Amino acid sequence: MRLVEVEHVIALVRQRGLARILVELADRIEEDYLRWGEFDKSPRYAAHSPHGVIELMPIADCERFGCKYVNGHPANQAKGLQTVIGFGVLADVGTGYPLMIAEMTLMTALRTAAMSALAARHLARPGARTMAIIGLGAQSEFQAVAFEALLGISELRVFDVDPAATAKFLVNMRDSGLHIVATDTAGEAVEGVDIVTTVTADKRSATVLSDNMIGSGIHINAVGGDCPGKTELQAAILDRARVFVEFEPQTRIEGEIQQMSADFPVTELWQVIAGEAPGRQHADDITLFDSVGFAIEDFSALSYLFDATTDAALHREIDLLVRPADPRDLYGMLQRQLEPEPAIAA
Amino acid sequence: MRLVEVEHVIALVRQRGLARILVELADRIEEDYLRWGEFDKSPRYAAHSPHGVIELMPIADCERFGCKYVNGHPANQAKGLQTVIGFGVLADVGTGYPLMIAEMTLMTALRTAAMSALAARHLARPGARTMAIIGLGAQSEFQAVAFEALLGISELRVFDVDPAATAKFLVNMRDSGLHIVATDTAGEAVEGVDIVTTVTADKRSATVLSDNMIGSGIHINAVGGDCPGKTELQAAILDRARVFVEFEPQTRIEGEIQQMSADFPVTELWQVIAGEAPGRQHADDITLFDSVGFAIEDFSALSYLFDATTDAALHREIDLLVRPADPRDLYGMLQRQLEPEPAIAA
Repeated sequence: MRLVEVEHVIALVRQRGLARILVELADRIEEDYLRWGEFDKSPRYAAHSPHGVIELMPIADCERFGCKYVNGHPANQAKGLQTVIGFGVLADVGTGYPLMIAEMTLMTALRTAAMSALAARHLARPGARTMAIIGLGAQSEFQAVAFEALLGISELRVFDVDPAATAKFLVNMRDSGLHIVATDTAGEAVEGVDIVTTVTADKRSATVLSDNMIGSGIHINAVGGDCPGKTELQAAILDRARVFVEFEPQTRIEGEIQQMSADFPVTELWQVIAGEAPGRQHADDITLFDSVGFAIEDFSALSYLFDATTDAALHREIDLLVRPADPRDLYGMLQRQLEPEPAIAA
Repeated sequence: MRLVEVEHVIALVRQRGLARILVELADRIEEDYLRWGEFDKSPRYAAHSPHGVIELMPIADCERFGCKYVNGHPANQAKGLQTVIGFGVLADVGTGYPLMIAEMTLMTALRTAAMSALAARHLARPGARTMAIIGLGAQSEFQAVAFEALLGISELRVFDVDPAATAKFLVNMRDSGLHIVATDTAGEAVEGVDIVTTVTADKRSATVLSDNMIGSGIHINAVGGDCPGKTELQAAILDRARVFVEFEPQTRIEGEIQQMSADFPVTELWQVIAGEAPGRQHADDITLFDSVGFAIEDFSALSYLFDATTDAALHREIDLLVRPADPRDLYGMLQRQLEPEPAIAA
């Protein structure tokens, strides 16, 4: 059985390059979205505590089972820990045997960015070249690279309430080739752009974008509002926008649309990808991808990672699965291995 | 973060001895059952396919979160694979960080046997010395060792429909010190015993024990009937017995009592352990532990294993969790590690 650690994901990025991986991941997610009906989907499991939440996101098709473990602990940042950390398991549906355990913190940032850019490829105006990013935390640079790689975004206007986050972003992106303007307000950042990405970390209902900031024709990629009680957009924006979601039952609880009535109209993105529902219909439509992160995206990421890490340098073999000669003889296997270990010759 | 592999569990058994581990595990389960109300319990998640089932069993108290991944694939045996294989994760509720990933196939056999013996310690007649085991598969020897260690069982009467399974059991137990009689029928096996353990693997409604075989005063440890459509006992036995379960909502679906009406009376075992409900009331009561395996037992096992494997020889350190210097600078961490690896000097 395979263990894919942080160092192995980094080695894969070194081997293929970040942009190529984001493109390949988006392609894999798109393929999986096209066979939406083949997945056994269920809401995530969540264990809440006063400190945060631990979630399990299981999903399966007829060949593979995937599950991501992920937490959300806002107070971690003050302790020097990640607010969100994750790992995943991929298993063989035919035998029930796990195939791989893999880091899913980096991979979640990658799949989220790939998913955002994939949605924008289907929803933003053709020829979009400028994007605003509001919120310059852990995910922001991955979003920038994905939109450059998948859509050809060449200019960014960026804003964060914390100047240190802005400084970090600018340093990280200095060799990106993107033209980047840091602004003093969110309103300045969104002026005249084709796409707005909101990816703030604040765990409450905030108004990162207000209605007057959003001109016609914009595509909004709303990434940060992703759990109950956490939203980024003024409700009036949603009223003007055509709203696209991953999996409606989940987004009703976790997304921006938790602010709206239960019958507020939304379209599941897979229908647009499959040509079963229209995406953007007019150049001046406001399109909104109300992204919360769905288990299929993690499945795609785990599945991609499994296929990409067969090389011995890209994983470690681990011994989590007993292999008795006779499946019914677990005890005999144990007994035989209990014989004292041979002493090492001096 | 810690990985506890098969070899590490075997090393732990070598270090402490199987009987001691079973006693310690039973004590840990008993402690956890005594604080039943502190656990955030939920039904298991199950992904069914034509080949079998993949399950997740999450549970948490205010300090630790545990989850077991376990499958059930009857056709695996013919492929030389385990029908049931498992691994688990233990995490820190305060930070949401996983602490340990561990093998849980051997550990499940151990915790099931410890749980069975613990229940019998509370329900069987005092002074019980003889036990029948019906079904001599992968779990049978662990049951035998646990009942010897925890109850002082000294005589076994054993039966399996497959003579090869019986032969395997007798070989494995030859140095156990137990007096063992293999019988030609299940009826012969249960004659005159104090305790009957049924632990067959057949995935259907079978009648391993019929009513006429069960005399008064017996304690029945029914382990094998543990999923929908899989039972071992004739319903008439349940009518005569006082039935004890782990977690009633789960056992109604998975246990022997799936044969009975929804209002068939049962007692949750933790109430007996806590002194809140009577266990055995008369020497001639038939007591029945309708065991299906509950998440607390896996939590106890994972928690025990975590505490027992701090020694470097009993685990492997793995690198599943990113550690950027600044939690928000995931991208910078990745970029810095992408620098070309230094060439090895010739």
